[in-house]
Amino acid sequence: MTGPRFTDLAASLPASVPFVGPEAQERARGRPFRARVGANESVFGPSPRAAAAMAAAAADAWMYGDPENHDLRHALAEAEGVAPENVVVGEGIDGLLGYTVRLTVAPGDAVVTSDGAYPTFNYHVAGYGGVLHKVPYRDDREDIDALLAKAAEVDAKLLYLSNPDNPMGTWHDPAAIEAMLARLPQGTLLVLDEAYAQFLPEGAQPRIAVDDPRAIRFRTFSKAYGMAGARVGYGLGAAPLITAFNKVRNHFGMSRISQAGALAALEDGAFLAETIARVAAARERIAGIAGDNGLSALPSATNFVAVDCGADGDFARAVLAGLLAQGVFVRMPFVAPQDRCIRISAGTQADLDLLAAALPRALAEARAEK
Amino acid sequence: MTGPRFTDLAASLPASVPFVGPEAQERARGRPFRARVGANESVFGPSPRAAAAMAAAAADAWMYGDPENHDLRHALAEAEGVAPENVVVGEGIDGLLGYTVRLTVAPGDAVVTSDGAYPTFNYHVAGYGGVLHKVPYRDDREDIDALLAKAAEVDAKLLYLSNPDNPMGTWHDPAAIEAMLARLPQGTLLVLDEAYAQFLPEGAQPRIAVDDPRAIRFRTFSKAYGMAGARVGYGLGAAPLITAFNKVRNHFGMSRISQAGALAALEDGAFLAETIARVAAARERIAGIAGDNGLSALPSATNFVAVDCGADGDFARAVLAGLLAQGVFVRMPFVAPQDRCIRISAGTQADLDLLAAALPRALAEARAEK
Repeated sequence: MTGPRFTDLAASLPASVPFVGPEAQERARGRPFRARVGANESVFGPSPRAAAAMAAAAADAWMYGDPENHDLRHALAEAEGVAPENVVVGEGIDGLLGYTVRLTVAPGDAVVTSDGAYPTFNYHVAGYGGVLHKVPYRDDREDIDALLAKAAEVDAKLLYLSNPDNPMGTWHDPAAIEAMLARLPQGTLLVLDEAYAQFLPEGAQPRIAVDDPRAIRFRTFSKAYGMAGARVGYGLGAAPLITAFNKVRNHFGMSRISQAGALAALEDGAFLAETIARVAAARERIAGIAGDNGLSALPSATNFVAVDCGADGDFARAVLAGLLAQGVFVRMPFVAPQDRCIRISAGTQADLDLLAAALPRALAEARAEK
Repeated sequence: MTGPRFTDLAASLPASVPFVGPEAQERARGRPFRARVGANESVFGPSPRAAAAMAAAAADAWMYGDPENHDLRHALAEAEGVAPENVVVGEGIDGLLGYTVRLTVAPGDAVVTSDGAYPTFNYHVAGYGGVLHKVPYRDDREDIDALLAKAAEVDAKLLYLSNPDNPMGTWHDPAAIEAMLARLPQGTLLVLDEAYAQFLPEGAQPRIAVDDPRAIRFRTFSKAYGMAGARVGYGLGAAPLITAFNKVRNHFGMSRISQAGALAALEDGAFLAETIARVAAARERIAGIAGDNGLSALPSATNFVAVDCGADGDFARAVLAGLLAQGVFVRMPFVAPQDRCIRISAGTQADLDLLAAALPRALAEARAEK
C-alpha cells in the first residue's frame, strides 16, 4: 500500500509552524500563563457591541456566512472611503497574504522582505516555491532603500513591508512610503501590511490611491479591534487585483459570527478610540517599567513595545525565558541585532504589574548566567 | 504604472464562484427568502450547548485560537477512536479540500471525480492547475467502477467520492467502499467526503483503518451539528498525510469561537441524535409533499432530498425558479440527467409548509411554460 504522491514542492517543504501558540507553551509548562502579553493581541477585548453581536449570531451559526462578505465589504468601503470593489475580506491577514502569494508567485519567483520581518509571509512564499531575498533592518526600521534596491536587483514579484513594523514597533513617515511607491520597480507589487495602522500617530498614515495597481494594503480586526480570535482581515487595492482573489479564495471560509462581529466593531468608533488610548497608556507604562530596570524602550506606533535588553540575543533570550518561567508570556524578534530586544504587548494594569514584578528577577538571573 | 504580475496559472483562472449564496439571491430579489432549505444547512441549529459556548467565547475573541487545535483534535480523536495524529482540523471541508489538492496536485496532474459532484472540489483542482477527468453518475449514484477505471487510465493523483452523495443523497454499501479501496490504483489517494456521514443508516458506515495511506476522510460540523457558519471541518487519515497539512495550512485560520463551539457540540450527543431524527422526519415529509404533487423522492442518507421532477433539466429549472420566486430557497444538480431533480434540504415544519404551498404553483407554471 502506497501513500499519496505529494507534489515535488510539497514534498520539499518542512512541516514548519510560523509561531508556536501560547496554548502549546502552557501545555508544555503544565499551567497557564498569568499574563498574556506576547502575541500583540488586544487585552482590552472586542467592543462590547461586537461581543454582543457575535453572541447573538451564535444561535444562527447553522447558516453559512455570506460568501461575498457583502455587508462587511460595503461597510469597510464606506469607512475607508473607497468602493466595495476595492475591498477583499479574508481569514485574517495571514489568509490574505497566502492568497496574494498564490496569485503572484510561481516556483522560483523572487520576493523581497526584511530579515526578521513577519515569518508567516515567508511561510507562504516558501509554500508556493518562491525565493525569498532578505535585507537587514537599519536602525530598527525596515530599510526602504535596501528593499527597493533588492527588488530591482532580483526582479521581485512582491515586496513586503509592514508599517508600523512588527516586531520592532517602528514606522516610516508617510512621505517615505509614498516616495517608495513611486520608486518601486516595474512589476513589483508592494504588499503593505498595516495590521497596526490604527495606532499610528495623527497624520502618519500614508496617502496611497486605492486604485494604484502597484500596492495592496492589509488591515485587520485582530489588533486595535481586539478580535484576533475571530479571524477577519481585509485588503484594499485596485479592483483588478481585488477581484483576482475570487479565483483562489475559500469563498465560504469566513465565519458568519465573525462577519457579524466585525460589522458591529466597525460601528463602535468610541470603543476603538478608547482602546487606542489605553494602548498608548500601556506603552508608556511598559517604557516606565523598562526604565526602572535600566532598559530602554523603542518608540512604538503599535500595541506593543520592543524593549532593548542592552546586550546580545542570548541575553535577551535568557530574559525572555525568565519572564516565561514566571508566567509572563512575551515574545521577541528572531534576528540579530533586533533580537537584543524583547517584545511586550500592551497589557492590563494587572498584566503590567506582573511584568513589573517579574522583570527584575528575569534580568538578575540572565545576568548571573552570563 | 503596471499592476502585479500574476502567475500564468492565476492569470488563466476564471474569477469563478463555486456557489452563489442565498444572501446574494436575496439582494437580487430585494427581499429575504421565507424558507432557507437550499444549502443543506441544518435549520435545527447548533446544539444549545454549542451556541452557549460560542456566545461565551465571544468576549474572549481578543485571543487567537490555538493554532494546533489541540483540544478539539484530541476530543475528535477520542470520539472517532483514533490518535490525535490522525486528525487535522480546518476551515470547513472546503478549506481542507483546498489543502489536500495543494499538497498533491501540480499543474497537469490528473484528478478523477463524478460529473455533477461537488463543484468546490473542482474549483480547487482547477485552481492548482490539475486536470479533471469526470465520469457520469450511474443510477443517480457515483459510479465506483467507472471512477476506478478512469483513475487507473489517467494515473490520477486524487479520486473524489462523496458518500453519502451530494447532490443526490444516495450512498454506497460499506462493502462497496471497502472493496473500492482495495482496487484503488497505486498512488491514487481516495478523497472520501463524508460531510453527511452522521445521516447514514445504522451499519452503513464503511470500515476504513485510519492509518490506511490510500484514503483521507473528511467530516464536518456544518451539517448534522448545525454549525455551517462556524467553519469547522476535519480530516481523518494516516499520520504522514495529516502531518503534511502543517506545511501549507493557515495555522491561525480557525476562529477561537468556532473551536469552542465544536468542542461543546461534540459533547452533546443527545442533540445530535435529536437532529438526526428530526432530519429523518423532514425527509419523509418532503417525500410526502413530492408524492402529493405526483413527483418521486430519491432515497437519501443526508439532510436533503433530491426530488425527481419527472422531466428534463429545463423543466426542473423552471420548477426551481417558481419556488425561488415564492420565497423558497432550494438548489438543484448542475448536470444531466441528475438535473431532472431539485434538491430540498430538511426544513422546519414551517419551512415545509411553505414548500407544500409553493410547489403546486411552481409545477403548474413550469408545465404551462413547456
